[in-house]
Amino acid sequence: MKIAIINGPNLNLLGKREPGIYGSMSFDDYLVTLKEKYPQVDIHYFQSNVEGELINELQRTGFDYDGIIMNPGGYTHTSVAIGDAIAGIKTPVVEVHISNVHAREEFRKLSHVSGKSAGSIIGLGLKGYELAMQYLIGLKG
Amino acid sequence: MKIAIINGPNLNLLGKREPGIYGSMSFDDYLVTLKEKYPQVDIHYFQSNVEGELINELQRTGFDYDGIIMNPGGYTHTSVAIGDAIAGIKTPVVEVHISNVHAREEFRKLSHVSGKSAGSIIGLGLKGYELAMQYLIGLKG
Amino acid sequence: MKIAIINGPNLNLLGKREPGIYGSMSFDDYLVTLKEKYPQVDIHYFQSNVEGELINELQRTGFDYDGIIMNPGGYTHTSVAIGDAIAGIKTPVVEVHISNVHAREEFRKLSHVSGKSAGSIIGLGLKGYELAMQYLIGLKG
Amino acid sequence: MKIAIINGPNLNLLGKREPGIYGSMSFDDYLVTLKEKYPQVDIHYFQSNVEGELINELQRTGFDYDGIIMNPGGYTHTSVAIGDAIAGIKTPVVEVHISNVHAREEFRKLSHVSGKSAGSIIGLGLKGYELAMQYLIGLKG
Amino acid sequence: MKIAIINGPNLNLLGKREPGIYGSMSFDDYLVTLKEKYPQVDIHYFQSNVEGELINELQRTGFDYDGIIMNPGGYTHTSVAIGDAIAGIKTPVVEVHISNVHAREEFRKLSHVSGKSAGSIIGLGLKGYELAMQYLIGLKG
Amino acid sequence: MKIAIINGPNLNLLGKREPGIYGSMSFDDYLVTLKEKYPQVDIHYFQSNVEGELINELQRTGFDYDGIIMNPGGYTHTSVAIGDAIAGIKTPVVEVHISNVHAREEFRKLSHVSGKSAGSIIGLGLKGYELAMQYLIGLKG
Amino acid sequence: MKIAIINGPNLNLLGKREPGIYGSMSFDDYLVTLKEKYPQVDIHYFQSNVEGELINELQRTGFDYDGIIMNPGGYTHTSVAIGDAIAGIKTPVVEVHISNVHAREEFRKLSHVSGKSAGSIIGLGLKGYELAMQYLIGLKG
Amino acid sequence: MKIAIINGPNLNLLGKREPGIYGSMSFDDYLVTLKEKYPQVDIHYFQSNVEGELINELQRTGFDYDGIIMNPGGYTHTSVAIGDAIAGIKTPVVEVHISNVHAREEFRKLSHVSGKSAGSIIGLGLKGYELAMQYLIGLKG
Amino acid sequence: MKIAIINGPNLNLLGKREPGIYGSMSFDDYLVTLKEKYPQVDIHYFQSNVEGELINELQRTGFDYDGIIMNPGGYTHTSVAIGDAIAGIKTPVVEVHISNVHAREEFRKLSHVSGKSAGSIIGLGLKGYELAMQYLIGLKG
Amino acid sequence: MKIAIINGPNLNLLGKREPGIYGSMSFDDYLVTLKEKYPQVDIHYFQSNVEGELINELQRTGFDYDGIIMNPGGYTHTSVAIGDAIAGIKTPVVEVHISNVHAREEFRKLSHVSGKSAGSIIGLGLKGYELAMQYLIGLKG
Amino acid sequence: MKIAIINGPNLNLLGKREPGIYGSMSFDDYLVTLKEKYPQVDIHYFQSNVEGELINELQRTGFDYDGIIMNPGGYTHTSVAIGDAIAGIKTPVVEVHISNVHAREEFRKLSHVSGKSAGSIIGLGLKGYELAMQYLIGLKG
Amino acid sequence: MKIAIINGPNLNLLGKREPGIYGSMSFDDYLVTLKEKYPQVDIHYFQSNVEGELINELQRTGFDYDGIIMNPGGYTHTSVAIGDAIAGIKTPVVEVHISNVHAREEFRKLSHVSGKSAGSIIGLGLKGYELAMQYLIGLKG
Repeated sequence: MKIAIINGPNLNLLGKREPGIYGSMSFDDYLVTLKEKYPQVDIHYFQSNVEGELINELQRTGFDYDGIIMNPGGYTHTSVAIGDAIAGIKTPVVEVHISNVHAREEFRKLSHVSGKSAGSIIGLGLKGYELAMQYLIGLKG
Repeated sequence: MKIAIINGPNLNLLGKREPGIYGSMSFDDYLVTLKEKYPQVDIHYFQSNVEGELINELQRTGFDYDGIIMNPGGYTHTSVAIGDAIAGIKTPVVEVHISNVHAREEFRKLSHVSGKSAGSIIGLGLKGYELAMQYLIGLKG
Repeated sequence: MKIAIINGPNLNLLGKREPGIYGSMSFDDYLVTLKEKYPQVDIHYFQSNVEGELINELQRTGFDYDGIIMNPGGYTHTSVAIGDAIAGIKTPVVEVHISNVHAREEFRKLSHVSGKSAGSIIGLGLKGYELAMQYLIGLKG
Repeated sequence: MKIAIINGPNLNLLGKREPGIYGSMSFDDYLVTLKEKYPQVDIHYFQSNVEGELINELQRTGFDYDGIIMNPGGYTHTSVAIGDAIAGIKTPVVEVHISNVHAREEFRKLSHVSGKSAGSIIGLGLKGYELAMQYLIGLKG
Repeated sequence: MKIAIINGPNLNLLGKREPGIYGSMSFDDYLVTLKEKYPQVDIHYFQSNVEGELINELQRTGFDYDGIIMNPGGYTHTSVAIGDAIAGIKTPVVEVHISNVHAREEFRKLSHVSGKSAGSIIGLGLKGYELAMQYLIGLKG
Repeated sequence: MKIAIINGPNLNLLGKREPGIYGSMSFDDYLVTLKEKYPQVDIHYFQSNVEGELINELQRTGFDYDGIIMNPGGYTHTSVAIGDAIAGIKTPVVEVHISNVHAREEFRKLSHVSGKSAGSIIGLGLKGYELAMQYLIGLKG
Repeated sequence: MKIAIINGPNLNLLGKREPGIYGSMSFDDYLVTLKEKYPQVDIHYFQSNVEGELINELQRTGFDYDGIIMNPGGYTHTSVAIGDAIAGIKTPVVEVHISNVHAREEFRKLSHVSGKSAGSIIGLGLKGYELAMQYLIGLKG
Repeated sequence: MKIAIINGPNLNLLGKREPGIYGSMSFDDYLVTLKEKYPQVDIHYFQSNVEGELINELQRTGFDYDGIIMNPGGYTHTSVAIGDAIAGIKTPVVEVHISNVHAREEFRKLSHVSGKSAGSIIGLGLKGYELAMQYLIGLKG
Repeated sequence: MKIAIINGPNLNLLGKREPGIYGSMSFDDYLVTLKEKYPQVDIHYFQSNVEGELINELQRTGFDYDGIIMNPGGYTHTSVAIGDAIAGIKTPVVEVHISNVHAREEFRKLSHVSGKSAGSIIGLGLKGYELAMQYLIGLKG
Repeated sequence: MKIAIINGPNLNLLGKREPGIYGSMSFDDYLVTLKEKYPQVDIHYFQSNVEGELINELQRTGFDYDGIIMNPGGYTHTSVAIGDAIAGIKTPVVEVHISNVHAREEFRKLSHVSGKSAGSIIGLGLKGYELAMQYLIGLKG
Repeated sequence: MKIAIINGPNLNLLGKREPGIYGSMSFDDYLVTLKEKYPQVDIHYFQSNVEGELINELQRTGFDYDGIIMNPGGYTHTSVAIGDAIAGIKTPVVEVHISNVHAREEFRKLSHVSGKSAGSIIGLGLKGYELAMQYLIGLKG
Repeated sequence: MKIAIINGPNLNLLGKREPGIYGSMSFDDYLVTLKEKYPQVDIHYFQSNVEGELINELQRTGFDYDGIIMNPGGYTHTSVAIGDAIAGIKTPVVEVHISNVHAREEFRKLSHVSGKSAGSIIGLGLKGYELAMQYLIGLKG
């Protein structure tokens, strides 16, 4: 079973940026624990700050992977093109946000991605990635 | 460990309403499977079509339960009072929606509940309740 | 043939409230004349100021009655949940308003109920209930 | 007793346009049955695609007819001038729409006509014209 | 010197409509007094309820008349096409409104005509036509 | 002299909820001091989290009480029906808010209640109830 | 093969109005060259400043012509009724605008016609009519 | 007969500011010609850049003058207080603007003054003051 | 104990302006009764129609007075600068409005002052000033 | 003669994505037929999912090519920077959309590209590219 | 060389108001250091809380000074009249704000001054005044 | 001391694009003079049209440089992700715009960058970069 995790802009700063809020664990460290916990899943990880490279990756994995977990970061609120890519591929996509975007600035309430995805998990921290994986495993099972 | 599941208006119609979309399983049947799967959790279930009774239930369970899973149904988009109740209690609340509200009418994009909750799980079907429970169990552990 | 009339908040004040505008006839008195005029119809009447009880009543009558006439009063403009209930049941619903809501405050132009109902009769006074009944009888005939 | 029925743009296509939705009955055929059913009423029928001619007709019938039934079609949402004409005449006007405009595009929720009319009947099909006639007959009686 | 007065929809009802507000003088009677007062001006009068005929008249008089006084009535707030016609002709146009449109409904504050005209005279009653004429005579003089 | 105090949703949590902000005094305790201070007034107290029960209480006390002090809590911003109830009864209503709603979220600036009440006292803490009572006593005196 | 060209308000001024911008060629002259270039097409030309006459023409040609090229002029932005007419007929309609409406006033960005037409050609001058014709010929071919 | 002319901010720059647009005549010079032309009127002139001083002047002249001609300049679009002052006094006020404010920035379309004044004269240059005076003389006569 | 009452534009017209609505008592007369009733308070009164002078007065009294009662009149809805002044001083400010601003024009619902003040008393007539004073005395005591 | 075709995000999926809607022809295949049809034109093709690379290509071809045909895909609605690039180069740009964006989601009605381009061809399928080419050839000729 | 510094409302409180945020230096003290640093510039300083006096000062210095540095304080967001004054004078104006207005309340994002000024320096503290001076010196040099 | 200058899309066209407006100096040439003037500063220059590369560069320089001067070009108005990057790094960022964005299109008034930066310098030409550098040097000193 193959699942892609695609992280958008600034998520590479995790663990380095405001550790009081986001914790001191980098996404790479988290990924190690996730892979250990789900050995039966072939987890592919990709991060980019470039909107178009995220689209490239969605297209690359969007036809034969079993699931995609995407955190589009700041592009969530501005990218029609990522929404279009999700609508155009076949693999189900679960949108994940670490922080509760609804409790932040007003403009973070608009999402061009949510309506095109299968669903969303918001505000449940890094745990959200694992829950998304369980959902995708469940779809398969 | 005690977790409350609080369902809002029209969720009592599940299984009866448009089975092509929502499936033919009622929430009561789903609840049985959920309890079997998580025997270590004392699951309390409550449903009402009355906004104020949902607030009563949030207040009743909001100080000594370990977690609340709430699907506020149509009140999600109109109830400041439910949002206030969630902000006023101590137990963490996870908001769950069975369908992907972002792929439906425009007015369903506004939520008075999301910003006051710990987080949200949207569009992942009945599975969303189980994922929320795992999150709450994880908080405790 | 069974038809339910469901009245929302403050409609129990009819006849008592501003008789210069609304006339001195209470809804109970009007109901008597209506029943006399349509003896072949089993008319069930329900009024509540509680949004959720209106939903309960919609659900109770929404699967085996032949028609529902609903005046949601002030909930017309704020209740997504009543709109959802109407969408979820099988009995056709006709929305009725005694006064011309379009000639009053701006916020009364928004209706969460109209788009989910079969149709609406607005501003034609108590006569609107009778016209709605004729429509529902016609559907059956 | 004299009642005018005034139909706006594209209503002359009825029966020809999308019969699956609107049925195969033209308005002329419907008019025949209506006249037979209400022989005591002198029904005057007028249709035009020209906004100003609809205003002309409102002015021509608006001072000595007993009632006007108007379906302003697409001008409902854009014509301040028709609303002004209705406000300026003496005969009561009932607005009728065959389809449920509230269940269609967003811009159909704005009406320049509803607030100036006596009331509105929306979404109840061709039956709406007959209900409006009954209301107007009732006013007279 | 040639000046056209072009009146839009419902202005033909003047004197007949709500005499308490608009006075009992029809526009035809007013025109007589105006012509007597300004014998040196060749006043051409045109009224129509049809938006397009108003445009026809603007085009007909818009290249060799010395001035146009226009009261577009309800089309003021909705007609891009009349605004375009005024922008496309050469004769200066003064917009006149009898009542103070800014003290009425919100939608009357939007004008598609004002910005394309030379200027506007609003709320000064029938006197506004005479003041507009003086302005146009002054331009010439 | 009879005055009703009607408190809306979540106000029963007072003293228990965030004592750093709201203080450690419950409304029941406050009520004791209020009654001692105004022995000449027959103070009737009612609290509910249910919108419709608040309307019921407004109707019950709205015709023969001398005054109503209402804190509609979160329903302030969403309830057309409570506003309608206040408009429909005869007893003067003073709206009270403990915290300064204008210094909080944007959506708390919209009130469906203020425009229908006699007036409002906002942000002056529990003292606001007493000031409202003095106003109502003054009306009577 | 039969194609109708339908021009809306003020397009009869072409060549006369602001030749610096629109060129000195009238539409009649342009039509001659177009007919010479496409002798195999029976081109029917219609222009009116009256909204309703444009609807009449759409209905007249909308069931047996092979294509319609329409420049609705200023009615583009305000006419729900023309949009409805296009939706109600069978012949495919291509919307053409000579100037780039998106580079002009804000209100010209709203079109009630574009979404109901097959497509649009905007800002490519008189050439746009020819391109629309080629598209329609291609559909047939 | 006493008429006050009250000019708002920046109108003291007339003649000095952009003479290509506004002409080279200062308001003082214009005032001389106006007084010569209307010797029977006692014209009082006041200019200030201070909003409150304009209100003072409205109050000072607003109870025994026969008319006020006011050009509120930039305060037109922002001053509720000037609108309140006009509503609170007894003398009729005619609002005048030299340039056509509707052909300029979007924010100049909002006026807090127009709806409270008797009427407005806009875009007719300095001539607007004279026309306003004639209207006020006519009221008196 | 020192309390300042600061009244904004047009409040100097009280008693003179529309006595049917505002009563025939001037603010000066009201002030006499207020001073007699609260002899222990040193009441300082200031009124101005000039926004900046109101700011001057807020700054002058804002650091050593015990309380400020302010009715900003029309500036309530437009003055960011008064709101900034209140935020910048130390003395607590209570905003008072004599009439119920929420029952008037739409633009009166926006307040730049409420969110910066301690609280507001709205619509309770001149009595509102006395209630504000009691609140401020209570703060001190 | 040199013309560049620049395609934005997700257009590389053509033929693969939802063939029922978009047909089974990939853009590469279409390009072959286009080149055969216009052998006199040197057609340069570029596609990228990266906004900035599209800008790079616009800059690279924008000074010496004879024309650019651009389909900005989802960036149409969000990219000020592409609009700026088009405004900054010298080669005329024609915007092309395969589907009728006005008949889809609301947010697709906003274009940051249309107003900066020479013009637009929308909803005419792949044929739109050829029509754009003819326009550009015509400019040159 | 002559440069005017014009400060708007509440800037006279600097050093006294919230020293933790704004520092303990008053503007007078800052001015001393600025004059010492730029002995070649004749710096004229003016502060007022009155909008109109700021306009007076702009007019007084706006024709023969070499530059104006203006911090309009709270009037930035509400004063069309100050914007008009800046547009009407000849001396270039640089707008300065000490704090970062874009990181504060939503309404501070609207500026009536920025678009009329040469440019703006925002959020760089008191240093912003010096940078503005260097810009103005550079213009001259 | 190390300062990074980061330029966004289309700024590489400087000197080539519309020299009448932007001057004939390229940014590279300007950079030479800047480096000569500030030999004590190690100036690092980066330009890209790709949003994500700008984010990469912000992250690369955002933890050990002493300051960043950023002109985000068209991304200013659309990029939440750049704003997030600025918020996530430690080096202070000054936003610079060459032209006065407030005097251009409406959509340029929205900035996702200003509120996250230390401050902004707008409309002061290339000089703005130098002023930003002085501010950053001052921070250090």
